[in-house]
Amino acid sequence: MTTPDGGVPDRMRVAVLDEPHRIGIEYRPTPIPAEGEVLVRVTAVGVCGSDVHYYEHGRIGDFVVTAPLVLGHEAGGRIVAVGPGVPRARVGERVAVEPGRSCGECSECTAGRYNLCPRMRFFGTPPVDGALCEYVCVLSRLAFAVPESISDDAAGLLEPLSVGIWAARKAAVTGGSSVFIAGAGPIGLVTTQVARAFGATEVVVSDVSEERLRVAQSFGATSVSGPGEGDGAFDAFIDCSGAPSAIEAGVRRVRPAGSAVLVGMGPDDLPLPLGVIQQREVRLTGTFRYANTWPTAIALTASGRVDLDAMVTAHFALAATEDALLATRKPGQIKVIVQPHVT
Amino acid sequence: MTTPDGGVPDRMRVAVLDEPHRIGIEYRPTPIPAEGEVLVRVTAVGVCGSDVHYYEHGRIGDFVVTAPLVLGHEAGGRIVAVGPGVPRARVGERVAVEPGRSCGECSECTAGRYNLCPRMRFFGTPPVDGALCEYVCVLSRLAFAVPESISDDAAGLLEPLSVGIWAARKAAVTGGSSVFIAGAGPIGLVTTQVARAFGATEVVVSDVSEERLRVAQSFGATSVSGPGEGDGAFDAFIDCSGAPSAIEAGVRRVRPAGSAVLVGMGPDDLPLPLGVIQQREVRLTGTFRYANTWPTAIALTASGRVDLDAMVTAHFALAATEDALLATRKPGQIKVIVQPHVT
Amino acid sequence: MTTPDGGVPDRMRVAVLDEPHRIGIEYRPTPIPAEGEVLVRVTAVGVCGSDVHYYEHGRIGDFVVTAPLVLGHEAGGRIVAVGPGVPRARVGERVAVEPGRSCGECSECTAGRYNLCPRMRFFGTPPVDGALCEYVCVLSRLAFAVPESISDDAAGLLEPLSVGIWAARKAAVTGGSSVFIAGAGPIGLVTTQVARAFGATEVVVSDVSEERLRVAQSFGATSVSGPGEGDGAFDAFIDCSGAPSAIEAGVRRVRPAGSAVLVGMGPDDLPLPLGVIQQREVRLTGTFRYANTWPTAIALTASGRVDLDAMVTAHFALAATEDALLATRKPGQIKVIVQPHVT
Amino acid sequence: MTTPDGGVPDRMRVAVLDEPHRIGIEYRPTPIPAEGEVLVRVTAVGVCGSDVHYYEHGRIGDFVVTAPLVLGHEAGGRIVAVGPGVPRARVGERVAVEPGRSCGECSECTAGRYNLCPRMRFFGTPPVDGALCEYVCVLSRLAFAVPESISDDAAGLLEPLSVGIWAARKAAVTGGSSVFIAGAGPIGLVTTQVARAFGATEVVVSDVSEERLRVAQSFGATSVSGPGEGDGAFDAFIDCSGAPSAIEAGVRRVRPAGSAVLVGMGPDDLPLPLGVIQQREVRLTGTFRYANTWPTAIALTASGRVDLDAMVTAHFALAATEDALLATRKPGQIKVIVQPHVT
Repeated sequence: MTTPDGGVPDRMRVAVLDEPHRIGIEYRPTPIPAEGEVLVRVTAVGVCGSDVHYYEHGRIGDFVVTAPLVLGHEAGGRIVAVGPGVPRARVGERVAVEPGRSCGECSECTAGRYNLCPRMRFFGTPPVDGALCEYVCVLSRLAFAVPESISDDAAGLLEPLSVGIWAARKAAVTGGSSVFIAGAGPIGLVTTQVARAFGATEVVVSDVSEERLRVAQSFGATSVSGPGEGDGAFDAFIDCSGAPSAIEAGVRRVRPAGSAVLVGMGPDDLPLPLGVIQQREVRLTGTFRYANTWPTAIALTASGRVDLDAMVTAHFALAATEDALLATRKPGQIKVIVQPHVT
Repeated sequence: MTTPDGGVPDRMRVAVLDEPHRIGIEYRPTPIPAEGEVLVRVTAVGVCGSDVHYYEHGRIGDFVVTAPLVLGHEAGGRIVAVGPGVPRARVGERVAVEPGRSCGECSECTAGRYNLCPRMRFFGTPPVDGALCEYVCVLSRLAFAVPESISDDAAGLLEPLSVGIWAARKAAVTGGSSVFIAGAGPIGLVTTQVARAFGATEVVVSDVSEERLRVAQSFGATSVSGPGEGDGAFDAFIDCSGAPSAIEAGVRRVRPAGSAVLVGMGPDDLPLPLGVIQQREVRLTGTFRYANTWPTAIALTASGRVDLDAMVTAHFALAATEDALLATRKPGQIKVIVQPHVT
Repeated sequence: MTTPDGGVPDRMRVAVLDEPHRIGIEYRPTPIPAEGEVLVRVTAVGVCGSDVHYYEHGRIGDFVVTAPLVLGHEAGGRIVAVGPGVPRARVGERVAVEPGRSCGECSECTAGRYNLCPRMRFFGTPPVDGALCEYVCVLSRLAFAVPESISDDAAGLLEPLSVGIWAARKAAVTGGSSVFIAGAGPIGLVTTQVARAFGATEVVVSDVSEERLRVAQSFGATSVSGPGEGDGAFDAFIDCSGAPSAIEAGVRRVRPAGSAVLVGMGPDDLPLPLGVIQQREVRLTGTFRYANTWPTAIALTASGRVDLDAMVTAHFALAATEDALLATRKPGQIKVIVQPHVT
Repeated sequence: MTTPDGGVPDRMRVAVLDEPHRIGIEYRPTPIPAEGEVLVRVTAVGVCGSDVHYYEHGRIGDFVVTAPLVLGHEAGGRIVAVGPGVPRARVGERVAVEPGRSCGECSECTAGRYNLCPRMRFFGTPPVDGALCEYVCVLSRLAFAVPESISDDAAGLLEPLSVGIWAARKAAVTGGSSVFIAGAGPIGLVTTQVARAFGATEVVVSDVSEERLRVAQSFGATSVSGPGEGDGAFDAFIDCSGAPSAIEAGVRRVRPAGSAVLVGMGPDDLPLPLGVIQQREVRLTGTFRYANTWPTAIALTASGRVDLDAMVTAHFALAATEDALLATRKPGQIKVIVQPHVT
């Protein structure tokens, strides 16, 4: 392991989900980068709704927390050491971390759909530990260099931005598109920004919260509406709510041959307006994470096409990780950041 | 109107749906081709499930039979006269008729999606009369010349073949594809043939009827199964059953990033396995008729890639149209043909 | 013909290309809208390089001016009368005119590629008269309503904007794309704007003129270069120069699996770096006009994503049409507008 | 290394290209499979034109033979040992070998375009040794199990079949397509078969050799022609000749919005009919190897959709490798196979 002059401590602090509703801070050995890996000093970790869900319920669908787990998969930082086979010159780079490690060998990976890799190991998803700690090892190729114009916070938030980019690609958003987005939570807001950045000229956002709708307008929504209101003929509907009624209403607002993309995890069985899908030949699909999005995320953020810093509403130290998770439930919060090295 | 030497009679016989369960034979004036139209002497009309549905129920969804209606939209024949602006040389051509007349001006039409044209006028769909009569007028461009290698019956059956071609295109069936088809009725069988013709090397068909499954094998199914049996990871699922349980089971058998195409009209609201669609990023869509399929249908039939004649199980005279409609409900029948000029 | 209260004069002034280098002003009968047509009072006509080419050479390729011809195909105006079958309510609408009338019936048209219709009748292309006159008749569907936020000039310039939109679609420009554009003339500049509006974060423009490159920067180019300079790996190369050396250099700068789109008309036979195309699997194509672009052009302009007014550098009265054509050759001119009703 | 009971000899025979026009047989240590690799006992190696080119010229473009090189990249065989991390159960499998090993980490690889990986290591391409020997090690994922219905020879010929599949995919060949193929050598013939297997109903092949054209007909060409003859409007043109005149003539025969795919390596700079590409919006691209084709190749071969055995015209022992290379130049030869274990 090649380390910079200042050195890396042998031990580091880690926020561990011991059981639902209990996060403890432990000391663990600082990991050592294996071949092809880099060691990243984590400067910012965004808190995601899925982190909160594990914290509250100990599971998401088939993924069950059966042992202490480190959460966090929205991470930025700086490379402080490299493993064998990685150029020494990478040490010192500011990076954004793509949190999923696919096998690179299965038919999904070789086809460019590595997000569907059955052997994916994903940060903060049982049994794989995440980034809510001081240092993480990742494959060199998953640590993307970011320019100075991208802040530490924004480096972490390239991950939810990737979710929005993937949704916009699936929905074929392009110059002049009209897009209807259900849900003005963090994913809805970042998707609103992406839709605008991809050239959409009409982006209508719906939510039950008027406050969130005001925020959506500040991020580029051209108009907003309560759920179930209005009609229309949008080129694309992107669901970021997971609410069955919102999904059904959204699908009904897609124009002939338009797209419906379901980002939010909804109930496993969902009644869909099949007649609409058939008579309008609506193309419906879901998204599962993302693939090949970091270069786009970096380009959009560095160029100012999207503003991730504006989405950050609170910062917490690692020791206050539990507070950070709880904060996401409070009104007015969009993205909460944990800074592992701030005390 | 330019007519051949033999002439065309002033009056013709027409099979008219007067009310549900009652088809009468009337004499009506033979239509005169308007500008850009041709007059086709109809030699074969395939009977479709939708014809039977109108006969039995007087409606399909929002389309309600409120006045006497001529059914029939699967027509082949010979051009016997042309209207102004159509080359005289077309007289004598054997043709297959595309039964839908789109406006050519709306945004769907100019985008190449004329099947979604809101002003579509479609044979045998209220209030537009169909082809169960001796002569019909159609736009010259909707009367496609067919070679001698395509029989009269097959000329009519290019219409259901188009349904299968459209489904295969939506499902992106290609060389080496594996395809799962639910429903071994006429559309399922023709789609089975199309899937093979597009290069699919695995075509599994499911149905409740063992007899229909045997027929499916004769049309190229590589294996068959009862409904709900088996699992798998198919490149594409094509529903030709309209049965909710078959649709749900079929979607579950799509591989990651595969396609699900719903051809059969199902119930308006359908519970779909949303988790599967999201986690595998299944692309689901429906089909509504077809666009730009006749040249492909002609090429596949003339080259012997599909065999439409083998699907014909009975012929009826025009006077026996009601018997023809009833026959489709009998075991062993696949496609029933009405021959308007046979007595 | 339904006309507004103010009426339309029986005769109108028309700028006619009698022979190369000679434009005369004539009086002709004001046309009367036929079925499905509207009569547009022309308020602005952009001058295109092709107009100038006809003026100077009397031909473009196979299109030869053999009789007096009215040039002009970038037109905006107001509907002042409608023909049979067009709603009276359209009278008074401010509109942009799509200048090509396709047949709507051939296989190109029904496939949504009407720009490739062999029976296309296009404004200002022999033998079809164009819009450099006070009134023109067009099909109702080719007169697109524009909001007040789009000026008369901009309404006319939706046509060259359409050229840029078509190029960007062919080049698959999307959020985060890097695009290299050769040629900073009007089409290069509008394509630069479109690339930015479609989300490109890197748009490099090359030209021989430093002045034009400065203009390109004002329209969104992120950097500029002299011809043949630099290298790189762009997602897309769009040629708007027609210069063989620029095309060859541009194709060499496309990344693996990227696109090269040739907009400028070049020499009929062009040496291309085949090895690059093969080893990088570059996708190369040309553009011929556009299809289904006006709604996008209107959305981009009305939303301020592109600024067409900023491209207008001079206005001329109809009587000064010849001066307008000559002006396009002068330094500093981008788009020159003829205003048929300004005296 | 896990080996079967019979064991694998320590040394093996290898055909080595020492210098142009000289192949020698050497003994070398049998390789030992590294982690993730399998050891394949090679039963058949197809001889490719590129092998012959290296034999005759010592180079292909930038790839120069500067040290003794083992040729051969069309290999089938049986797994006789596995390295660490590979299931023991693979021993005994009959396999086809995909001959290129991509890095799995670069942006081309993660995007599913591993054929464009800049770190690709490809059999029989300097400095990587190929398969003209008794045993080769390959990554487990590159050794594809084949059923008994695929012969040893055919297992090797899945590689040129992959070239044809890739070309057909790029050309978007589908049910009812018309395809024009220039060149009736091995790649032209296999592409002819693939085009038919993908559903093409018209496949016209051109060549200077009447004998080869007769062979093309036996492999499914629907008609044949001398070079430069005929015209037409094909959905796709696929060049397998590398001849500039054939390429130019072929591009001119593509219908509007059709495809031109250049498979054969031609001269580095090629004059192309740019006017045709622009006015018809022809999509032109090249192919460089292939990606994700083996499953399709296996499905097409096992199902009998393509017949690779019929392309084999001669067999040679390893000791006669030089004769095998020379044989490919003789009239009547299509594919020549070297059988490393036959004496």
